[in-house]
Amino acid sequence: MEVAHMLLYEGKAKQIYQTEEPGVLRISYKDEATAFNGEKKDTLLGKGRLNNEISSLIFSILKEAGVESHFVRRLSETEQLVKEVTIIPLEVVVRNVAAGSLVKRLGFERGHKLKTPLVEWYYKDDALGDPLLAEAHIKELALATPEELAQMQQMALRVNEELQKLFATINVDIVDFKLEFGKTNGEILLADEISPDTCRLWDKDTGDSFDKDLFRFQQGDLQEGYETILSRLIEAHS
Amino acid sequence: MEVAHMLLYEGKAKQIYQTEEPGVLRISYKDEATAFNGEKKDTLLGKGRLNNEISSLIFSILKEAGVESHFVRRLSETEQLVKEVTIIPLEVVVRNVAAGSLVKRLGFERGHKLKTPLVEWYYKDDALGDPLLAEAHIKELALATPEELAQMQQMALRVNEELQKLFATINVDIVDFKLEFGKTNGEILLADEISPDTCRLWDKDTGDSFDKDLFRFQQGDLQEGYETILSRLIEAHS
Ligand SMILES: Nc1ncnc2c1ncn2[C@@H]1O[C@H](COP(=O)(O)OP(=O)(O)O)[C@@H](O)[C@H]1O
Ligand SMILES: Nc1ncnc2c1ncn2[C@@H]1O[C@H](COP(=O)(O)OP(=O)(O)O)[C@@H](O)[C@H]1O
Ligand SMILES: [Mg+2]
Ligand SMILES: [Mg+2]
Repeated sequence: MEVAHMLLYEGKAKQIYQTEEPGVLRISYKDEATAFNGEKKDTLLGKGRLNNEISSLIFSILKEAGVESHFVRRLSETEQLVKEVTIIPLEVVVRNVAAGSLVKRLGFERGHKLKTPLVEWYYKDDALGDPLLAEAHIKELALATPEELAQMQQMALRVNEELQKLFATINVDIVDFKLEFGKTNGEILLADEISPDTCRLWDKDTGDSFDKDLFRFQQGDLQEGYETILSRLIEAHS
Repeated sequence: MEVAHMLLYEGKAKQIYQTEEPGVLRISYKDEATAFNGEKKDTLLGKGRLNNEISSLIFSILKEAGVESHFVRRLSETEQLVKEVTIIPLEVVVRNVAAGSLVKRLGFERGHKLKTPLVEWYYKDDALGDPLLAEAHIKELALATPEELAQMQQMALRVNEELQKLFATINVDIVDFKLEFGKTNGEILLADEISPDTCRLWDKDTGDSFDKDLFRFQQGDLQEGYETILSRLIEAHS
């Protein structure tokens, strides 16, 4: 007998449901796309499936490389099971190449290669517009201890190394990406998603974007871009 | 015989001239007021004198307290002599109470007392709008080494202690302020100005502002506010 499980939270891109198993959640990826803090919105058929498939694949590959996350297993085309965590309200951004807000902040040209990967913290707070935080702000808000920040930074850089290797196998540069971490039993665990919604992915030869910038700046067909990433990943990793 | 000395640099609030003495500059405080990255501008008669007198007094009192700066001596109503430094292009902001951009960034109420004084770094770059920087950005831009940042932070907090004590003697809270540091012979020295243009100063009883917010938000007469600060300082320190 099927049991209806409680919807715990509905965000911009995913729904989070309880399951029979304590400490395990079901994430259902939606077809909604949002950008610029929700100002731009649309329904894009198939996006939920693409992000779930890509995110599942990436978390599996990370696990093989020794990087743990909340990911338990893929459940269906649009769903996965994950370990429940208490999300730390920080968006942890890793950048290899200047794009987006970094271009405006530091005056770099879009595409400028950074000397070393750069880790930024943003306050995950839609009402405030997800502002950049310095470590002093994080301390004042008591969002994470200096030790937790150091640990997340180290984990984020480790994920970056693996993602750079992974995307190199499909001729794609990972320009930047956003991670979220959560806590469970006092431990910090990589959570949320890693998908073209949360990464900038540029073809190494053409420079074409295969990520949410397609939607943000109406540069082309989002589903086609995400489909390219998924099919190249499947081809390289099967 | 008077010798005309070269104008080295003209900024929004001051002119910097060479002097006969190598390594010593003359700063002339202007009557111009600007805010919001130069979008709002006006000439306010007497502002140059008030800022020069207040800044000279504060640097002298800091020196008595053991805090060195570029300040050599007051030269006239609107001028002072300073040691030449190479300015590090960072605006070092110390905050005791939430106001201005911190209210927007962290969602605090204006007037919220911070748990501990908070030090922020802004990129001194008018074209980029003086954006907030994290330490990772400063490293990427090579604006200062981690050791230099630690040193400036320590100096800024030391200045904060002295300014809190000083303004308490005239019944004023120092809400926040901006410092600039420069380098000379490999040493870091406190430079630029400390004045109601670069501080937020609130009367402890009434909460009235005596600083550039009077101009920013047309809250009252700027010269009157600055004059209050100067006359209270003179009364308390003579
Ligand atoms: N393992 C997890 N346990 C609990 N919450 C999670 C987990 N992984 C992700 N989340 C949270 O699920 C929510 C739904 O995701 P999303 O639709 O992207 O929301 P948002 O619009 O807040 O970014 C987010 O708040 C995200 O932080
Ligand atoms: N001791 C010093 N040596 C060299 N430059 C200085 C010194 N103190 C301040 N300055 C610089 O003098 C310039 C003029 O000041 P200001 O009018 O406030 O300029 P700005 O509009 O750039 O803030 C600023 O660039 C400031 O950093
Ligand atoms: Mg999200
Ligand atoms: Mg200035």
